[in-house]
Amino acid sequence: MNNFDFQNPTRLIFGKGTIAKLGTEIPSDKRIMVCFGGGSAKKNGVYEQVKNALSNHFNIEFWGIEPNPDYDTVMKAVTLARDNKINYLVAVGGGSVIDGTKFIAHAIPYTGEDAWELAIHPEKITKTTPLATVLTLPATGSEMNYRGVLSRRRTQEKVSFITPKSSPQFSILDPEVTYTLPKKQLSNGIVDAFMHIMEQYMTTTGNGILMDRWAEGVLLSLIEIGPKVLENQKDYDTMANFMLCASMALNDFVSMGVPQDWATHRIGYELTVLYGLDHAETLAVVYPSLLRVLKKQKTEKLAQYAERVWNITTGSKEEKADKAIEKTEEFFRQMGLRTRMSEYGIPAEAVDIIYNRLKAHNIAYGENKNVTAEVAREIYTGCL
Amino acid sequence: MNNFDFQNPTRLIFGKGTIAKLGTEIPSDKRIMVCFGGGSAKKNGVYEQVKNALSNHFNIEFWGIEPNPDYDTVMKAVTLARDNKINYLVAVGGGSVIDGTKFIAHAIPYTGEDAWELAIHPEKITKTTPLATVLTLPATGSEMNYRGVLSRRRTQEKVSFITPKSSPQFSILDPEVTYTLPKKQLSNGIVDAFMHIMEQYMTTTGNGILMDRWAEGVLLSLIEIGPKVLENQKDYDTMANFMLCASMALNDFVSMGVPQDWATHRIGYELTVLYGLDHAETLAVVYPSLLRVLKKQKTEKLAQYAERVWNITTGSKEEKADKAIEKTEEFFRQMGLRTRMSEYGIPAEAVDIIYNRLKAHNIAYGENKNVTAEVAREIYTGCL
Repeated sequence: MNNFDFQNPTRLIFGKGTIAKLGTEIPSDKRIMVCFGGGSAKKNGVYEQVKNALSNHFNIEFWGIEPNPDYDTVMKAVTLARDNKINYLVAVGGGSVIDGTKFIAHAIPYTGEDAWELAIHPEKITKTTPLATVLTLPATGSEMNYRGVLSRRRTQEKVSFITPKSSPQFSILDPEVTYTLPKKQLSNGIVDAFMHIMEQYMTTTGNGILMDRWAEGVLLSLIEIGPKVLENQKDYDTMANFMLCASMALNDFVSMGVPQDWATHRIGYELTVLYGLDHAETLAVVYPSLLRVLKKQKTEKLAQYAERVWNITTGSKEEKADKAIEKTEEFFRQMGLRTRMSEYGIPAEAVDIIYNRLKAHNIAYGENKNVTAEVAREIYTGCL
Repeated sequence: MNNFDFQNPTRLIFGKGTIAKLGTEIPSDKRIMVCFGGGSAKKNGVYEQVKNALSNHFNIEFWGIEPNPDYDTVMKAVTLARDNKINYLVAVGGGSVIDGTKFIAHAIPYTGEDAWELAIHPEKITKTTPLATVLTLPATGSEMNYRGVLSRRRTQEKVSFITPKSSPQFSILDPEVTYTLPKKQLSNGIVDAFMHIMEQYMTTTGNGILMDRWAEGVLLSLIEIGPKVLENQKDYDTMANFMLCASMALNDFVSMGVPQDWATHRIGYELTVLYGLDHAETLAVVYPSLLRVLKKQKTEKLAQYAERVWNITTGSKEEKADKAIEKTEEFFRQMGLRTRMSEYGIPAEAVDIIYNRLKAHNIAYGENKNVTAEVAREIYTGCL
């Protein structure tokens, strides 16, 4: 097991009716900016609940943090916050709103010229405005971690900024807010959470006996819950377990002392930037092909995954690995996602376009840093 | 799933050579008291590592926090700390040293007359001296939770004090410190961690799909690791996984939104107070009998436990439950613990002695509050 340093200070306030606690958890003298996405909060009743909870606080609203939050958008929020002397932020939404708000929190006190610098070099972040979240879409785990992703459409860039300073102080998770989510977002959320675990689990090295079990536990839960979520999204316990799985899938609880991969996420970004695919769609496309290309390197763990997660108990390790990859792709399709580029109307030329971009960045991703642009080309060719 | 409020702010610094970080993690102006147990820290090299790490800090030592820490002992430490204007504590030891130091941390700033009051009414704790730990014995999980147990031998009392204020700021876990632990302590530690999970898992109600998987994950890991720990306690990865399991077994990571039981712990205390059994020994004695007595109530979960943890796939639910109880008792014995009162030389009259004590307290323990003194008598009769 590798040495590690773990801390996750975010408090989870979880369950029915918990949005009402928002007001009592934030000191009454704080000047709050509440950040929203595109407007769904007004349709599902969350907006009213949040505003009622904050009725005794000074608070303003910022609307319009888009999926894959854009630097130019969040900088408008930063200006608004500075103009209003905001000293507490509340993100109401899914991973994109939360990620965007994390960046806003860092950028408000930043005195440098170009705050994009903080996205590329999060070690330069010295001060952060405190932040809480009200989660409306289980998927990214951003409500309980210190990760964020920011895009800059002007320059076709998308970067992760990872810093302990991004941890929300608390996050409110009321499973009832998921009852009215579009089915597509549920599909994406399930696959997103599943893939977060795979990136921390599907590695060849390490000796994380307990971490393997916990990763497998989330996978088994998602496989059990996934079809139920799509069938009846108003079943409280189903949605509560889904919501909990998504938070636990990326809060470092399953990654203590074990290697991680993340090649699928990194090379998948290209499909969002160039062709506008949802994040989860990029993962569903790239991952089965990545596993086929890297099968030899990952055979041992794939066989374990086959046995423990998919109950595939017969055949050689290679056969188990093959079946497990098939099962994984099937699961993504069962969850309603397409798994081939052609199904999204992406032409075969995309492979070389992406290759050239990755080549220019001289990439070396994955647990063994061996997913180079050439390997990525092979992976993309495999998912046409 | 039940509503819940989760937060665990303790930082884990885990791995080889990490004790050296103790000094850099505590501000240099702090006046530190380091609390130890009976002297093993001087034999295994931990004392030297701790003192070296703190060579630039003002620090004094308090020795002698015993197993099942006693109120009178820790109050001596409180006096020493007050006399030396101590404002930071470091516990070096296992659960008893850490629990005792947690109480010291609360008692130092307490201005009331009798600090025992804080053990019985932890809600009265308003100020706490900051605390870090260097764990030397994986077992209780105290290094990463806000629980503590304190005894008062003078009055034959033993109480749990549970308060978020007890969370250590950070805990250092170097698996190499376990290489020289007496085998008996390893046996106890494994059973202790196993039982912590069972108390949070073996319940009839609730719908914690993910929490069940995570609880089962710790159990499966302990069953895999246990024999290896006893066979070769100098295998780094084995001991690292054991250490991690013990911390994760009682830090609220597996109890989000699910019911808990704790009857075994509560009624087991009597065997420590009256007959001096180690904590883990009391659990190994009481639990198999408790499961037999409460089998009807817990059949569903016992059958799930049988299937997922012990791979018992044939027979009726009742038969699976019976086999799982047998397997559990066998595992405790495999770990080197005796599971019957008579094996510890406790006479049959103990049953009535304990019954009368529990009756006087009018107990109603367990997930359904139905473990009364009468039920406890039945349980104790079953483990003679």
